[in-house]
Amino acid sequence: MFASAELGHKIDKETYDAEEPGLRAALLDAQFDLAQQCRFPVVILVGGVDGAGKGDTVNLLNAWMDPRHIAVNGLGAPAEEERMRPEMWRFWRLLPPKGRIGIFLGSWYTQPIIGRVMDGGSADQLDSAIDRIVRFEQMLIDEGVLLVKFWFHMSKEDQYRRLKRLQGNPAARWRVTRTDWARFRRYADFRTVSAHTLRMTSSAAAPWIVLEGTDERYRNLTVGKMLLAAMRKRLDSADGKAGRATTAPLPPHLDRRNVLASLDLASSLTKKAYERKLEKWQGRLNLLSRDRRFRKRSLVVVFEGTDAAGKGGGIRRITGALDARQYRLVPIAAPTEEERAQPYLWRFWRHIPRHGNITIFDRSWYGRVLVERVEGYCSESDWQRAYGEINDFEWQLADGGVVLVKFWLAISKEEQLARFKQREEVSFKRFKLTPEDWRNREKWDQYEEAVCDTVDRTSTEIAPWTLVPGNSRYHARIMMLRTVVRRLERVLAEV
Amino acid sequence: MFASAELGHKIDKETYDAEEPGLRAALLDAQFDLAQQCRFPVVILVGGVDGAGKGDTVNLLNAWMDPRHIAVNGLGAPAEEERMRPEMWRFWRLLPPKGRIGIFLGSWYTQPIIGRVMDGGSADQLDSAIDRIVRFEQMLIDEGVLLVKFWFHMSKEDQYRRLKRLQGNPAARWRVTRTDWARFRRYADFRTVSAHTLRMTSSAAAPWIVLEGTDERYRNLTVGKMLLAAMRKRLDSADGKAGRATTAPLPPHLDRRNVLASLDLASSLTKKAYERKLEKWQGRLNLLSRDRRFRKRSLVVVFEGTDAAGKGGGIRRITGALDARQYRLVPIAAPTEEERAQPYLWRFWRHIPRHGNITIFDRSWYGRVLVERVEGYCSESDWQRAYGEINDFEWQLADGGVVLVKFWLAISKEEQLARFKQREEVSFKRFKLTPEDWRNREKWDQYEEAVCDTVDRTSTEIAPWTLVPGNSRYHARIMMLRTVVRRLERVLAEV
Repeated sequence: MFASAELGHKIDKETYDAEEPGLRAALLDAQFDLAQQCRFPVVILVGGVDGAGKGDTVNLLNAWMDPRHIAVNGLGAPAEEERMRPEMWRFWRLLPPKGRIGIFLGSWYTQPIIGRVMDGGSADQLDSAIDRIVRFEQMLIDEGVLLVKFWFHMSKEDQYRRLKRLQGNPAARWRVTRTDWARFRRYADFRTVSAHTLRMTSSAAAPWIVLEGTDERYRNLTVGKMLLAAMRKRLDSADGKAGRATTAPLPPHLDRRNVLASLDLASSLTKKAYERKLEKWQGRLNLLSRDRRFRKRSLVVVFEGTDAAGKGGGIRRITGALDARQYRLVPIAAPTEEERAQPYLWRFWRHIPRHGNITIFDRSWYGRVLVERVEGYCSESDWQRAYGEINDFEWQLADGGVVLVKFWLAISKEEQLARFKQREEVSFKRFKLTPEDWRNREKWDQYEEAVCDTVDRTSTEIAPWTLVPGNSRYHARIMMLRTVVRRLERVLAEV
Repeated sequence: MFASAELGHKIDKETYDAEEPGLRAALLDAQFDLAQQCRFPVVILVGGVDGAGKGDTVNLLNAWMDPRHIAVNGLGAPAEEERMRPEMWRFWRLLPPKGRIGIFLGSWYTQPIIGRVMDGGSADQLDSAIDRIVRFEQMLIDEGVLLVKFWFHMSKEDQYRRLKRLQGNPAARWRVTRTDWARFRRYADFRTVSAHTLRMTSSAAAPWIVLEGTDERYRNLTVGKMLLAAMRKRLDSADGKAGRATTAPLPPHLDRRNVLASLDLASSLTKKAYERKLEKWQGRLNLLSRDRRFRKRSLVVVFEGTDAAGKGGGIRRITGALDARQYRLVPIAAPTEEERAQPYLWRFWRHIPRHGNITIFDRSWYGRVLVERVEGYCSESDWQRAYGEINDFEWQLADGGVVLVKFWLAISKEEQLARFKQREEVSFKRFKLTPEDWRNREKWDQYEEAVCDTVDRTSTEIAPWTLVPGNSRYHARIMMLRTVVRRLERVLAEV
């Protein structure tokens, strides 16, 4: 959930100064149209890590737009009037009417998350609260509300620095309270619980927009642009209705920094070191596959990656360590007729291994949010809802004892070209290269965006993505073997 | 949830024999079209009380239709193959492909409900399971599945008789197991937990169809007609897609028996008895309103009812017992401009009393599923989703310490006519009668159907409906006063 928001996003001053005036004017226009049309209200939720600039951003929106038509609701602990009434009363009374914008700094998410992390609430209580939130937001959307949800994230180190800096500044010292430090000490718990909550409440009509709060200029431009895009989409639609298929846009990375671009593709390994390590990790994997405790678990390994990134080679290094009776390799191509007559995930459910067994997917259910999204094989609403469906699916696997390892194998654009050329030249490799590969290459940027969204939305505690730099085949293979082994060791230790 | 399924519904043999052949032919036709179009699959869930005819009905569907295109899945405890895989695997592998019908006798609901009632699962665990079910079914619907959910209900007495009768019959004795009796002893718990589960999982696209299982002919005709209607609706639609607005029909009551028709409108009271009781119950209500414990609770009383049924008189008998500073009377008419600019429930949230206070609604949020439904002031999808929204709303009130009492005041069609006439004649009452009242009267049957659906879907443990026979004003007023008093006494005893 948060990987993309820990990359140190930054916008330089020149870019910012060039963009700001136009953005402000466009936001004012949108606000004017909103009031004129008076067809729907805008509800903006602002949540996230303390010190990540939530308050500053709200002030900025107020400064950029006409504050007479924005109501900012800073919600702390409930006042007496509010405690004497049902919990949701305070939010209902603050909802903006049609034509207006209401910003909630602190919202219906605050109490459930804090309750779980700080006040000993159970996981089931949190899920029960999430269920109510989902119903509440669905109702808002059905009623025509444009709901835009921002989550300001910061890495633990950045938050520490931020709190320290505020404390060292006499004019800002009052902003750092004991509560802030008490919460900071539970950073890891907040991260886990927030990620879970955000994932479960990211619907197609109101996905969470997670952004890094460290750099003020990046933060401001991102919030402004996302809000503008969401408002314009509704304002310019014929009936001003959201409908199911109309979804808010995903966050762009204004500085073109993303989880893929941040991979160190140069990592490499000598042949000698490779052979030594290969033997070591394959040996450990073989031992694990015959471990008694593995009879109560099963393993699913997903290989996704750029064309020619070396998925096949990686798979063979893993199967090389396994007994052929114990694993199945499932290559995913176009669905069969039988599969097309079923819900999308059916074709993957049928290959789920029983305990003690292993299934390796060469491409997977992520096709829907990758190739199907980019090539337009399914509608936007289909791939938007797929993130949630996939998370549910993987949760069910994990709950059923399946250990899930997911690889994205990445190579640089230049490396891909070199490998394509090589395949063309070597006759026994020629079958591997199809015209489709060249076509996909032309859509490199679109695929990159789809991959980053996928990692952001489907990397979970129970099924994290491992991004593998693949320019060096040796390095990539060892990294994947090691990841599988370490993951299995950790899980089996808990059996 | 179950009130309509405890009325002793019955169909006589002649009616049944007349209807059956046509229904069977129509079902076969629908099944043929389903296979020909091959656009969507049909998933039928059959759940409910043991002995209420679930198995017999499934056999019947198989006999009525072409069994080669129906797969019946009788799901008991999971087999070894299934236990070794994630919980949902067994359901996924049994999903019917497009063009086919799959019947699930026992489904993804079985384990969560039994877990809660018999195996000590917590309420939060159940809600967490419900949340997963809602997501799973939403996915099925998004994928185009026609999902039809039947719940077979029986009163406790009927279930007892049924189990005894089976046990007494040598040929059927094997059908009654120890488990059946163990579960029978938890009848009340099953009823509560099932009602909650059904309510939370009744979506607009796949509402639960609750039917009484006691009379075989009623059961068969109802299931057959409901299934036929649901299939035809999809088969005859242009694109064979469900979409959000297309909803399955609600259960008709084939024998025209319903909760309103079953009310004993003849109950009455002498003037003398009325005056004595009025004093007694008003006195008790007054005491309660000044009780210290009431400062931690608040009271909301909803008055709904047929035109001229005597809502005003009932309200005055309650407010007559209260301090004017403590209560507010909120008459609900057409929404104001300010209210129209907000989500539907907003206008009611604003009147929620603080602790120690009372709000009386003369008509209420139920307008959406009554007048707005009947008069077509909102779309079908709007009022269909309103049941769930209202249940959520009332749950939130209850959770916030609000005691909610809901009255439906009913009079017979003849009594209404008499009262209308009287109003026309008595000059100081004439203002009470509008042309709208006469128009509503013409839609008597439609209103009756809407009221029955409303009671079925929104009578909950925390906010039950009280149906009040109103032909005798005296009797009705005392009944309402007594209901409020008894409810408050019970709640305050727990403070």
